[in-house]
Amino acid sequence: MSRGHNFSAGPAALPEAVLRQAQAEFLEWDGSGASIMEVSHRGKDFIGVAEAAEADLRELLAIPANYKVLFLQGGATQQFAQIPMNIARRDQRADYVVTGDWSEKAVREGATLARIHVSASSQSTNYTSIPARDGWDLDPNAAYVHYTPNETIRGVEFHDIPDVGDVPLVADMSSTILSRPLDVSRFGLIYAGAQKNIGPSGLVVVIIREDLLARCPKDIPRIFSFAEHAANSSMLNTPNTFGWYLAGLIFKWLKAQGGLAAMEVRNRTKAQTLYDYIDGSGFYRNPVEVSVRSWMNIPFTLPTTELDAPFLRESQQAGLLALKGHKLVGGMRASLYNAVNQDSVDALVCFMKDFARRYG
Amino acid sequence: MSRGHNFSAGPAALPEAVLRQAQAEFLEWDGSGASIMEVSHRGKDFIGVAEAAEADLRELLAIPANYKVLFLQGGATQQFAQIPMNIARRDQRADYVVTGDWSEKAVREGATLARIHVSASSQSTNYTSIPARDGWDLDPNAAYVHYTPNETIRGVEFHDIPDVGDVPLVADMSSTILSRPLDVSRFGLIYAGAQKNIGPSGLVVVIIREDLLARCPKDIPRIFSFAEHAANSSMLNTPNTFGWYLAGLIFKWLKAQGGLAAMEVRNRTKAQTLYDYIDGSGFYRNPVEVSVRSWMNIPFTLPTTELDAPFLRESQQAGLLALKGHKLVGGMRASLYNAVNQDSVDALVCFMKDFARRYG
Repeated sequence: MSRGHNFSAGPAALPEAVLRQAQAEFLEWDGSGASIMEVSHRGKDFIGVAEAAEADLRELLAIPANYKVLFLQGGATQQFAQIPMNIARRDQRADYVVTGDWSEKAVREGATLARIHVSASSQSTNYTSIPARDGWDLDPNAAYVHYTPNETIRGVEFHDIPDVGDVPLVADMSSTILSRPLDVSRFGLIYAGAQKNIGPSGLVVVIIREDLLARCPKDIPRIFSFAEHAANSSMLNTPNTFGWYLAGLIFKWLKAQGGLAAMEVRNRTKAQTLYDYIDGSGFYRNPVEVSVRSWMNIPFTLPTTELDAPFLRESQQAGLLALKGHKLVGGMRASLYNAVNQDSVDALVCFMKDFARRYG
Repeated sequence: MSRGHNFSAGPAALPEAVLRQAQAEFLEWDGSGASIMEVSHRGKDFIGVAEAAEADLRELLAIPANYKVLFLQGGATQQFAQIPMNIARRDQRADYVVTGDWSEKAVREGATLARIHVSASSQSTNYTSIPARDGWDLDPNAAYVHYTPNETIRGVEFHDIPDVGDVPLVADMSSTILSRPLDVSRFGLIYAGAQKNIGPSGLVVVIIREDLLARCPKDIPRIFSFAEHAANSSMLNTPNTFGWYLAGLIFKWLKAQGGLAAMEVRNRTKAQTLYDYIDGSGFYRNPVEVSVRSWMNIPFTLPTTELDAPFLRESQQAGLLALKGHKLVGGMRASLYNAVNQDSVDALVCFMKDFARRYG
């Protein structure tokens, strides 16, 4: 048995050291006589785990005290609905910046819950760019401005936080959170499905500024209300306890790596390694405008689609996993989340060079 | 390190053999080069796991072909909202039979989504009984009839399926599913949070008769629509892949134990062992009407509440875990789900005898 170099876009690679720890304590957690999966979420063992995870996440992201951190279920996709349900009135405008397939989905899912307005879109460039900020059609009375800092499918990323004035900025950070330091105070609400940089799938983290909790309507089911979840420390119902526990181990691992400043250096270097090789190869190609290329998800194409099958077959044989591009884009995609290390990127580039030599 | 006898009400004990298998393949699943948590839910590895889990669950429960099985997130609590949202019109009556705290919650969460009518309640008996069927106030035009076959907190269980005519019967089976064979064809919809008899928390199984999918409104977010989840094999968004995988291992384990007919014999015997001892002890007491006592959750009290603290302390020391009763009820509760074996029940009774002798 051996673990491959895992470039999956999500559920994605997890740090091996974290997996080994979870494996070692899988049948009995910390002398409790049971697996962490087998204890009540309301008991002191799990509450200790949950609180430590939140504290470590707060430390990593320097989350200000006036923000609540929620550990919920249903993924980012459920948040597409839950966010307008909670922080917009049904007749109120909410502004969305569309830079790819995930922001498109956010628009569609929110459509029955608020007056969703597309303020800007890069669809005309096939989502290989980001619309310039000065062209965004924003309403100062909008409930919020929603954007997707990193688009997982086409590999487009905002490298700065847009200024939207006093309107709360809402960000789907599923595929970029924890990849570098972040100024949380610039946001009204941040959400992120866990299955890229946080932990296993089935968990979504919501970071919400407290003043927005006052907007949550009283006449929605409690299970959808951020205010209710915040008042109940995310234990309004039984949370995904194993996911929360594993996220906590990952937060500790990130701290041990040197925190997000260290991850930023690593992630920048990993991405640069691959982009530099692609751009200089004369064989592979990444279509995204250079200034908005993602550090986390790097799609690339081969000179002809006939080469896709041998590339996938041979890369798999070489222990390079999950390089197939999203079906909407085709070609290849390498996702370089926190748990993917420089060795894996180097191994990929080495394989790509050899493949280009043999098929070029 | 050693594992205790775990009587947790949920998240609850899991079969040790299943935990050992998951532990062994935790870093690399089936030669894939990655943990099952680290692979795409849309790849052939995970789809194989997901389909096998569904097939095994269908076999265990003999689920008819005209039912869809969904593996979703948000627990039974989210279903309290999602069910009326999908299969009732907002102005339509839905009938609820209230036999405890969980059916009460179902009523409250559904209240903004349909015209919820309490057709019967055993609140006046402090939920120690079940209202006789002939007293239920049912509307033949109701969207559905909802009941809770097993109430986890007070330990009350229906041992037969009520006849409600042609109105679809909807059941929250969180704490009783898979404890014995079930005639699924009697139901319109069955749902169950995983964290008792199915797997870890963060997963909820919904079994829905296909004709009810036609009721799902088109104007709700897709993520809440049973029809959309069914059309997308529960992969409309990233599912809780680890929970689904572990549930699949548990279904295989149940089949290896002899299926639900074998579990019925075991569960009946386990419960009878504890009830017989309690009733004959002259020391402990279970308040529930004998004919509706739960096989899964057995609350009991000691002669005085002053004895609760020493009982909990000494039972914990003896390796008998999680016996504290729910805060709404007080006293003790032993949950005897499928993964709790007769040895654990015998150890509990042995301890209870000794405790009664010393403190009686």
